[in-house]
Amino acid sequence: MNENMQQYLDKAQVLIEALPYIQRFNRKIIVVKYGGSAMIDEDLKRQVIQDVTLLKLVGFKPIIVHGGGKEISKWVGKVGMEPQFINGLRVTDEDTMEIAEMVLGKVNKSLVQLVEELGVRAIGISGKDGGLLKVDKKLSDGKDIGFVGDVKEVNADILFDLLEKDFLPIVCPVGMDDDYQTYNINADDAACAIARAVHAEKLAFLTDIEGVYKDPKDPKTLISELRVEEARKLMEDGYIGGGMLPKLNNCIDAIENGVSRVHILDGRIAHCLLLEIFTNKGIGTAILSGEESRYYHGE
Amino acid sequence: MNENMQQYLDKAQVLIEALPYIQRFNRKIIVVKYGGSAMIDEDLKRQVIQDVTLLKLVGFKPIIVHGGGKEISKWVGKVGMEPQFINGLRVTDEDTMEIAEMVLGKVNKSLVQLVEELGVRAIGISGKDGGLLKVDKKLSDGKDIGFVGDVKEVNADILFDLLEKDFLPIVCPVGMDDDYQTYNINADDAACAIARAVHAEKLAFLTDIEGVYKDPKDPKTLISELRVEEARKLMEDGYIGGGMLPKLNNCIDAIENGVSRVHILDGRIAHCLLLEIFTNKGIGTAILSGEESRYYHGE
Amino acid sequence: MNENMQQYLDKAQVLIEALPYIQRFNRKIIVVKYGGSAMIDEDLKRQVIQDVTLLKLVGFKPIIVHGGGKEISKWVGKVGMEPQFINGLRVTDEDTMEIAEMVLGKVNKSLVQLVEELGVRAIGISGKDGGLLKVDKKLSDGKDIGFVGDVKEVNADILFDLLEKDFLPIVCPVGMDDDYQTYNINADDAACAIARAVHAEKLAFLTDIEGVYKDPKDPKTLISELRVEEARKLMEDGYIGGGMLPKLNNCIDAIENGVSRVHILDGRIAHCLLLEIFTNKGIGTAILSGEESRYYHGE
Amino acid sequence: MNENMQQYLDKAQVLIEALPYIQRFNRKIIVVKYGGSAMIDEDLKRQVIQDVTLLKLVGFKPIIVHGGGKEISKWVGKVGMEPQFINGLRVTDEDTMEIAEMVLGKVNKSLVQLVEELGVRAIGISGKDGGLLKVDKKLSDGKDIGFVGDVKEVNADILFDLLEKDFLPIVCPVGMDDDYQTYNINADDAACAIARAVHAEKLAFLTDIEGVYKDPKDPKTLISELRVEEARKLMEDGYIGGGMLPKLNNCIDAIENGVSRVHILDGRIAHCLLLEIFTNKGIGTAILSGEESRYYHGE
Amino acid sequence: MNENMQQYLDKAQVLIEALPYIQRFNRKIIVVKYGGSAMIDEDLKRQVIQDVTLLKLVGFKPIIVHGGGKEISKWVGKVGMEPQFINGLRVTDEDTMEIAEMVLGKVNKSLVQLVEELGVRAIGISGKDGGLLKVDKKLSDGKDIGFVGDVKEVNADILFDLLEKDFLPIVCPVGMDDDYQTYNINADDAACAIARAVHAEKLAFLTDIEGVYKDPKDPKTLISELRVEEARKLMEDGYIGGGMLPKLNNCIDAIENGVSRVHILDGRIAHCLLLEIFTNKGIGTAILSGEESRYYHGE
Amino acid sequence: MNENMQQYLDKAQVLIEALPYIQRFNRKIIVVKYGGSAMIDEDLKRQVIQDVTLLKLVGFKPIIVHGGGKEISKWVGKVGMEPQFINGLRVTDEDTMEIAEMVLGKVNKSLVQLVEELGVRAIGISGKDGGLLKVDKKLSDGKDIGFVGDVKEVNADILFDLLEKDFLPIVCPVGMDDDYQTYNINADDAACAIARAVHAEKLAFLTDIEGVYKDPKDPKTLISELRVEEARKLMEDGYIGGGMLPKLNNCIDAIENGVSRVHILDGRIAHCLLLEIFTNKGIGTAILSGEESRYYHGE
Repeated sequence: MNENMQQYLDKAQVLIEALPYIQRFNRKIIVVKYGGSAMIDEDLKRQVIQDVTLLKLVGFKPIIVHGGGKEISKWVGKVGMEPQFINGLRVTDEDTMEIAEMVLGKVNKSLVQLVEELGVRAIGISGKDGGLLKVDKKLSDGKDIGFVGDVKEVNADILFDLLEKDFLPIVCPVGMDDDYQTYNINADDAACAIARAVHAEKLAFLTDIEGVYKDPKDPKTLISELRVEEARKLMEDGYIGGGMLPKLNNCIDAIENGVSRVHILDGRIAHCLLLEIFTNKGIGTAILSGEESRYYHGE
Repeated sequence: MNENMQQYLDKAQVLIEALPYIQRFNRKIIVVKYGGSAMIDEDLKRQVIQDVTLLKLVGFKPIIVHGGGKEISKWVGKVGMEPQFINGLRVTDEDTMEIAEMVLGKVNKSLVQLVEELGVRAIGISGKDGGLLKVDKKLSDGKDIGFVGDVKEVNADILFDLLEKDFLPIVCPVGMDDDYQTYNINADDAACAIARAVHAEKLAFLTDIEGVYKDPKDPKTLISELRVEEARKLMEDGYIGGGMLPKLNNCIDAIENGVSRVHILDGRIAHCLLLEIFTNKGIGTAILSGEESRYYHGE
Repeated sequence: MNENMQQYLDKAQVLIEALPYIQRFNRKIIVVKYGGSAMIDEDLKRQVIQDVTLLKLVGFKPIIVHGGGKEISKWVGKVGMEPQFINGLRVTDEDTMEIAEMVLGKVNKSLVQLVEELGVRAIGISGKDGGLLKVDKKLSDGKDIGFVGDVKEVNADILFDLLEKDFLPIVCPVGMDDDYQTYNINADDAACAIARAVHAEKLAFLTDIEGVYKDPKDPKTLISELRVEEARKLMEDGYIGGGMLPKLNNCIDAIENGVSRVHILDGRIAHCLLLEIFTNKGIGTAILSGEESRYYHGE
Repeated sequence: MNENMQQYLDKAQVLIEALPYIQRFNRKIIVVKYGGSAMIDEDLKRQVIQDVTLLKLVGFKPIIVHGGGKEISKWVGKVGMEPQFINGLRVTDEDTMEIAEMVLGKVNKSLVQLVEELGVRAIGISGKDGGLLKVDKKLSDGKDIGFVGDVKEVNADILFDLLEKDFLPIVCPVGMDDDYQTYNINADDAACAIARAVHAEKLAFLTDIEGVYKDPKDPKTLISELRVEEARKLMEDGYIGGGMLPKLNNCIDAIENGVSRVHILDGRIAHCLLLEIFTNKGIGTAILSGEESRYYHGE
Repeated sequence: MNENMQQYLDKAQVLIEALPYIQRFNRKIIVVKYGGSAMIDEDLKRQVIQDVTLLKLVGFKPIIVHGGGKEISKWVGKVGMEPQFINGLRVTDEDTMEIAEMVLGKVNKSLVQLVEELGVRAIGISGKDGGLLKVDKKLSDGKDIGFVGDVKEVNADILFDLLEKDFLPIVCPVGMDDDYQTYNINADDAACAIARAVHAEKLAFLTDIEGVYKDPKDPKTLISELRVEEARKLMEDGYIGGGMLPKLNNCIDAIENGVSRVHILDGRIAHCLLLEIFTNKGIGTAILSGEESRYYHGE
Repeated sequence: MNENMQQYLDKAQVLIEALPYIQRFNRKIIVVKYGGSAMIDEDLKRQVIQDVTLLKLVGFKPIIVHGGGKEISKWVGKVGMEPQFINGLRVTDEDTMEIAEMVLGKVNKSLVQLVEELGVRAIGISGKDGGLLKVDKKLSDGKDIGFVGDVKEVNADILFDLLEKDFLPIVCPVGMDDDYQTYNINADDAACAIARAVHAEKLAFLTDIEGVYKDPKDPKTLISELRVEEARKLMEDGYIGGGMLPKLNNCIDAIENGVSRVHILDGRIAHCLLLEIFTNKGIGTAILSGEESRYYHGE
């Protein structure tokens, strides 16, 4: 057998190895929170979309929830406004909200475009469509930071309808309160709320870090498997800080509300989603309920 | 009977008079091109949305196609760019296209918001979602005017799927060419192409004029019924000019491709849609195929 | 704006005001007990049928249950028989039952005819069809009054099947006992039993009185809202008598078995059904469960 | 084996012999025109209903169309009116029509009752329900004979809907003209029109004669198989007269419009329907298209 | 009436008598364990298949589970092997298992053939298809007897899918253990496990005995009705022995797990299934739960 | 990036490369004729089943048609019979047919077993089930060679039903003639007839040769793409002989009856099916209609 042939056989082998994974997630819903570098770097962007599209084609039901933070800031600047932050949260006045919604809409349709280009039916919606995301005003340490919302209700019917019609839904994190006023929502929060509401099998956060560290300064302390009670302990003991704190809270919330597995993935690694799902290469940190092992039986 | 009671009975009478109209359009698709003053004046806006929502609730299947011209110009200005026009058509370079898509997206979701507020399920999409609108580059007298597209194919499946799931679809006129590049589309053109593709019973243009005039300078020459061949004759004889020319071509195109009736309505009249559909008050100009009368039997 | 135009706008306004009501009852079942003057006066008859047909067309699911008392007496006379009554209840021997069934059948099809004429699919059935109404013999103070039945079981499948197929069902109150013998049923009883069995949102009795009075001799004591416990009290205290007693018992029975709201309407008022449902004009008496107000929020 | 056992085995054998017939007509529509003695004699009545119910239970889709001529005359007399006939056709003035509809309705529900008693879902309708039978006024030799109609259109949707919901439809021959006026229809005509419209496999007329005779005076000339062209010849040659003439015309009309086989059965024979369908005993006359044999292959 | 005619009427009568039975079992699942002489004698074989096919055609949902014991022994001999038994159970080594599966497969398809010949859709499956029968290794008094399995799980989805698609499923008793190794299963056990899993209305064992005897040596002690507690008592008291012991245990197991009625029928009697189901001739022994009588009301 | 990581990325890349292929064949039917060495060598067997199972899981609708020639000969020998051949075709007397059916049944269930083991729902049927394959007796140069059949009719309903219920159907080539007699069918013929009847997108023959050669003695003359007219020419010119002749005729027959593409694959190459479908490595010979290229656009 010549070398060329061997190369083809290796390819077949990879496909065959994917078999049990394809089977395990057949018709299962996977919510992907898409953000960070993977939204900026054009190569990474293309790779993420390829990954999600492949998941769709082999029988999974992925839902993308995306952010757009850096792009929003850029446009706020373009129109001569000054972004304001309180406690690290963007103060969202009416003008900022208008720009945020426009930018998120543009990002949303650009993702639709990439998925359609790969031949899969995509539909881009916001939390306003079909009343998907209902919010309450979020306060930051009691301070009013404008039109920033906490999800209080997810009307998941629209997602089930779209999945039934074989669409890949792409959601931007904008919602309405009881007076039908528009609010911005943190994309992690939106993804978590949606994953709970649709009883997702998996919720994956694409981030710009390798995962959760016991000691953020020491890369060797990257945690591969983290059980809910361990995560709680780490937070209580003050090991977790910054943006990881709310993210980890979201992870715990999801696990405790019926999502089987949550992943904090390093979105800077090409095809990190495929690697996580189709190989036994552990990427980033897996958050699990009490008794489970990160790896499925037989892996 | 006291006066108060008489007033209630009059109300009941109006509802009863609507009966044959409700019945005639039951489960029929009505495409509404929404634009002009009716998009800017807040009262008119609310009224149009009330009208369309009512049509939905009493069993019709409305689809809104909207523009956003003036708002786009405003935002082009906001970011310090200079709008450019050739032959009255906006020259749409990459930056302009980006802003146009953002603005149209914002307008789109604001309409979703108003419909949802009235308790009806809305979903806002662009011509990119589900590959709804495929375009070719449009030239203006042979001149390249940038990312302006002619609809060459409507993939109506997404609309049928959304109607089946009982959504009120709201469409903004953005599409993609064969290379999945984004293009702006004239909203009239998009509405006409969609009406053809979904075999709409009715296509209604909300405009800022009273209708088609034989002599635009003489309000008394407003035409109430216009048959396709008469419309052609008027155009050949040079009576029709300006923005009405392409609009009338769209009307003829729709009628000749299976849309039963096309209306040029004066969007500045409150509830012009309801008046046209539920009363025998002729609003604006009705374009008809050869033999039909404007009024249905018995009106 | 000329006067003519104003008139049209007023019409549009009435339709718009109907919007929240149409929405609230969308796909809800409304059982209408149709009887009294509204069955005899040709104008009222036409108006009731218009009302119910409109309810059907705007998305409600009405079911008509009708009586035929006076017409039965007329035909009993025609064939030279003498109507007999015990305690105000018609003694129904075999011959009378035969005539009653014939007359009710004729009335039933005349209603079908009127609905079909308005372009809506109607189907007239009796409680025998599909075994809809199963009865026990009813005794009057222990006395046998012949083939008069108490509903003991409603086989609602036939109604659900017909509603699913988009029919407007029109039911005449005839049923069978366990030996498949034919019985006459009081139309109020039949309407109440059916409303319970199909979990109707609303049950409306068209009667020949204005509503429930505290003092029947004093028209100013008409009660607009009556809670179940208040109704019980009125009966215990002896304020309610005559034909109103069993009717009120039916109302209470319906409310306590899942019907949201029961109305005693004055069928002599034109379009009383539309007025009750589409305006905030309170017609007749509304019977409610404990805590509710007659008017919905926002009315 | 004792005699008793043999008797049981004989029973099993009869069931087994029914197998190919059950299979042949599985899910096929069979229209039974029910009239004559079989409607009057209580034993025959019960047997016809047993037969049709059995057909339903073993998987056929029977539809009963019934008359009521003698009963109508009886009731016309009861109310002191004088039946009038022109050319053997009942003159049907408004009063007569009213009585006819009442009597047919009563007969209709009595059949529903018998079928329900055998545990099968029946529904009794007239040609008014769902607009089933649309008629034109019928003239007799140019003379107006009142509200007697010729079927001009069958709206079979209602029958397909009821069959889909597993009902046994029982139809009485009353219809409406374009002005929604009620008309009486000859039951043979109604059965024939319905059989055509639903593409029945079989149309069976229960009559009070043994079948078609070549010479009505000679019982030995009973015709077992009659091809359409032979039937035409017999009529042209004057062999067929009286009530058989229109009946035979109906038969030919049915065969030429897609009904596979029409039978003129002697309704005075117990279980004549079962005998015709489940045994190779030829009952009455079978009308066939050109090339077919009365007996199926293998019989 | 001549004798010939009387004979036909008798036939009709038999069909009419079947009416209530057809109705009672409409759409009910009946599992038939087919074995013994009825599988060998060609006449009996044809009759059993006729019976089951008739049940299918008149609206029941039969499932056949068959054995093949004698045929297996014949083929084991043909290839020169010696059948081995321990405690009356066939020792099933790998070679024997291979032959058993082949023979059972052949028998399975021969039954498919007979059913198809009668015009009914059959499909022959083994317990491997769709993972229908999952087994554990069965030990005989602690001794390993090879690939003989106890059913531990029935994956009934495949049967429901095939019944929904209107197939008559024919099952041979072969299953797989957790390692996907092939095992032979006792056909009685398989039939019982399947009847439980599909919630069969009836489970009928075709055997080579007349039924259960109190004293096997005295034919007059044949038991017609046997309640579960009586059956237990008989076993405890040592009246039941041989092959009847496990069969009776299966019967009790079925009754206690939701099967309404179990029958031990004498498969040597022609059409014993029809006789049991369609007549009031009690064939063999009926095993019942506590309070029921063998005969249905009215028999 | 370490070497280990690179290896994982390579795997992801292979999956991504499969994307367009998965998409192209989504919900398309692929018939695989499984035979030759790939049925004997245990490794190859496992690989073929892995391939087909993967096709199923990623959204294709594969159907396996298998032979069993060598195994049949082995068992004919085991029972002491002498295989007989005329013109290279097995003479199939009744005893041989019995053994052939048994052996094919055993092979069939062993494939079911392998697929089930991989977690996919399989069902093994023969051409008798649901009357799938109807045959006429095949003569060999006019000589009777026993129960060998030519497919004359495919009743594909059973396959569509099973695919709809998400089974992977595995078919063995046995059928029945009009007298319901069992016949053996050449597996290539059966696969071709089935591919035509189900309008397969692809028909793949797993063989023991590399493909079609212009000169069988010269491996360098392997033909990669063969158009129908070229294939005809090769046969006319005598280049094609032996078993390839009927196979090529089958290929042409399939292409001319709606199968898009037929492949003669070398079943001795591991994962040849995956290689053919998911890579641009051309395995064996592709038979195409006139104008097409072997490779899809963009490959």
